[in-house]
Amino acid sequence: MVQVRHPYNKVTARIADELRKIVGEKYVVFGDTERLEPYSHDEVAEAEYAHMPEALVRPGTAEEIAAIVKLANRERIAVTPRGAGSGLSGGAVPLCGGIVLLCDRMNRVLEIDAANMMLVCEPGVVTNEINNQLADYGLVFAGYPMSLETCYIGGNVAENAGGGKAVKYGVTGRYITGVEMVSPTGEIVRYGGKCVKDVTGYNMVQLMVGSEGTLGIFTKIWIKLMPLPKEAVNLLVLFETVQQAIDAVPRIMTSGGIIPTAIEFMDRLSVQASCRYLNETIPYEKCGAMLLVEVDGSDEAQVERDYEKVGELCVECGAIEVYVADNHTTRERIWKVRRNIAEAFKVVSPHQSLEDIVVPIANIPAMIPELEKLSAKYDIQIPCYGHAGDGNLHATPVKNPSASLEHWHAILPHIMEELFKVTARLGGTISGEHGIGHKRKKYLPLVMGEAEIEMMRQIKRALDPNNILNPGKIFDV
Amino acid sequence: MVQVRHPYNKVTARIADELRKIVGEKYVVFGDTERLEPYSHDEVAEAEYAHMPEALVRPGTAEEIAAIVKLANRERIAVTPRGAGSGLSGGAVPLCGGIVLLCDRMNRVLEIDAANMMLVCEPGVVTNEINNQLADYGLVFAGYPMSLETCYIGGNVAENAGGGKAVKYGVTGRYITGVEMVSPTGEIVRYGGKCVKDVTGYNMVQLMVGSEGTLGIFTKIWIKLMPLPKEAVNLLVLFETVQQAIDAVPRIMTSGGIIPTAIEFMDRLSVQASCRYLNETIPYEKCGAMLLVEVDGSDEAQVERDYEKVGELCVECGAIEVYVADNHTTRERIWKVRRNIAEAFKVVSPHQSLEDIVVPIANIPAMIPELEKLSAKYDIQIPCYGHAGDGNLHATPVKNPSASLEHWHAILPHIMEELFKVTARLGGTISGEHGIGHKRKKYLPLVMGEAEIEMMRQIKRALDPNNILNPGKIFDV
Repeated sequence: MVQVRHPYNKVTARIADELRKIVGEKYVVFGDTERLEPYSHDEVAEAEYAHMPEALVRPGTAEEIAAIVKLANRERIAVTPRGAGSGLSGGAVPLCGGIVLLCDRMNRVLEIDAANMMLVCEPGVVTNEINNQLADYGLVFAGYPMSLETCYIGGNVAENAGGGKAVKYGVTGRYITGVEMVSPTGEIVRYGGKCVKDVTGYNMVQLMVGSEGTLGIFTKIWIKLMPLPKEAVNLLVLFETVQQAIDAVPRIMTSGGIIPTAIEFMDRLSVQASCRYLNETIPYEKCGAMLLVEVDGSDEAQVERDYEKVGELCVECGAIEVYVADNHTTRERIWKVRRNIAEAFKVVSPHQSLEDIVVPIANIPAMIPELEKLSAKYDIQIPCYGHAGDGNLHATPVKNPSASLEHWHAILPHIMEELFKVTARLGGTISGEHGIGHKRKKYLPLVMGEAEIEMMRQIKRALDPNNILNPGKIFDV
Repeated sequence: MVQVRHPYNKVTARIADELRKIVGEKYVVFGDTERLEPYSHDEVAEAEYAHMPEALVRPGTAEEIAAIVKLANRERIAVTPRGAGSGLSGGAVPLCGGIVLLCDRMNRVLEIDAANMMLVCEPGVVTNEINNQLADYGLVFAGYPMSLETCYIGGNVAENAGGGKAVKYGVTGRYITGVEMVSPTGEIVRYGGKCVKDVTGYNMVQLMVGSEGTLGIFTKIWIKLMPLPKEAVNLLVLFETVQQAIDAVPRIMTSGGIIPTAIEFMDRLSVQASCRYLNETIPYEKCGAMLLVEVDGSDEAQVERDYEKVGELCVECGAIEVYVADNHTTRERIWKVRRNIAEAFKVVSPHQSLEDIVVPIANIPAMIPELEKLSAKYDIQIPCYGHAGDGNLHATPVKNPSASLEHWHAILPHIMEELFKVTARLGGTISGEHGIGHKRKKYLPLVMGEAEIEMMRQIKRALDPNNILNPGKIFDV
């Protein structure tokens, strides 16, 4: 558990009573360590990033959230908003104790407005549920984070989640046209709505997207939909070496005049771990790495030409096998392997650091030898997978089973720092989609100057004068 | 000219000397009314929105801009950044006098990085020049404001310019992955770069995009490029009535499973004015309004199927004629008519108000009878054209030639207020792409609550404590 010195007051029995009055008796947990413990961490494996809350509150309306935040300002108690807890940066961890504000009860799709191609929902909707509800409308939300079966849309917006289809469709933020939220001082405000263009004032919607719960708590989200692509084909492309697979990525992106929906990269270790975890048998024995490429569109012939072009490019880049998955069942099998890599590695070892570096696409090939150098220097494995078409790689240093835990804790900060420094040198940055949270906070200065960070702090101070909302995340104020 | 009471000091001869030391003798204009006058207004026609600067400064580097902004903070002098002056909201007007900072000398494309599909340039590059320079690379910047032959990319970013291809490709902001800028206190800062995904801290890039020169002065801009679509076809679709044409728009957007590149709307008055201005002869006699629809893609057969589908939908909606323009010359002729409507109307009458309302696409049809009611009530013409596929209409109240100028000035604020109120009632807002500037500032509360505006003010105050940068725009601080 982290030790933090901070100026916050604790949730007392009196304050817990006030919270019960706001949200109702059964939606407050206070003084029950066992029931509070699950809210002390997110999906970051290492226990050192955890911290216990003093109370859990589960509000049902924007008005209740506003009342909680006003109370927290009055009493100087930290409030940490939380979605499904599937984050990978410690963003939902209540670093300064206080209140965890869980939005699981606010889980309704409020409106499907097919005529405007818009959906309005509350933050606690499971991301996958959005497209389930859209199935009959011929419309789709393009967001596709790997945790879509469990994560909440509110968390996706707070982290500006990326995912598997961002190469063509962009990340979560592109589809968010409006938010209603409770401000850090407890006002209910709304920016944007159903207009697809809007320049009335600052782009507060996109400032809030990715602000990691430090500038507001979403209560309603407007999502732009698009026509469901009628045709989609996946290629599973096997390469002998990691380098060959990664070398093919910028080639596919720039040579074909095609924007694929996805170019996912998985090295052998990653595929192996996920296949074992799922008891799945996609062919990985002969290969050092594979690419999972998706192309889609409204026209069967065009999709066919696109995937043939991609396949040819991969063969030119030395692919040893190109499997075509053109039916839903096979596609889903392959994507399931991809989606479950992170879960699988947690079973392999709890001592690992799932990273989220991103570099300009042409520089991805240069990243591979750097990972190999790091791996050799520290005598650890660094399996690697991720959204290669975006330059976004989940390099994951894993503790060597033969080394001590003390040794692992001693070397990990050095590994992280070296990894991030080489990323910065290649024009990249330390997080493409998982966020800074508190896990990567200390590394932010490696990719951003003090003047740049200070302008962000000024915004935080201006909007949250008591530093009530998710304190200790992204940067210290 | 506007009269503003403000706490700023004037540019004195001593300060003008200091400015000359920073940028060089020949890049400062001071005490020369004739040479300063062009910088007292932008493309907003009405003289009431103009205000004279005290000095014009034309810096050549980020360092020079930083020195100017530091000087302005020390001396409490307002600084108004300016691009090509093609804005339509009074955004580049030096409302509080002081310095106009012109970025015309910073007009270099610094880098075309084809491997990363990125272009880096200075703010004073003419937007069209970007795609001219990209011609040999098979890459394109998707921004297409109607003023692209004269406007600067820096202004496009500052206003988050929309334009003719936003239905499919989105507005300027989608393509901006990084900015270097001088902050309101004179620091040179940089956010983002060549990564297509980046969640390290707040989305400062998108906060700056569309901030109308109130939060920073761009000195370098990173632009994401895309493969040039190989095939494009335009349809010019004639309808008997305005209502029929507009009714077809949401139908095209939602029924075909196609995202057109553009759906531009022009009523008869607009086409007529532009054709006369250009001495062009596209056929408008029989029709009340027309749609200009573009579809594009990488595949000829798919583009053909898409435009046939759109054509069929238009015929079902009552189109009386569908012309297909599948060669560059014809396409360019039609688009030139569309691009020159605003210019043409300025010749028709200098007394008009080019508006920029935007509503959710399904509500565009409901806007037409409202415009007709306003037109009848105030006995004026309101020609209308715009980016209908985005719900963005340039309704343009024009002074009745038989009425007095006094009468026009008396009724215009009422017309604007009624127009914006009905827009708000239809879920819309007062600007889709031109910005608030100072022309629409007083109407902002019609579409945004005080709490929402106050949060924006808090950001402005935090980043610009002396309110030096483009004061009096968007809102009063």
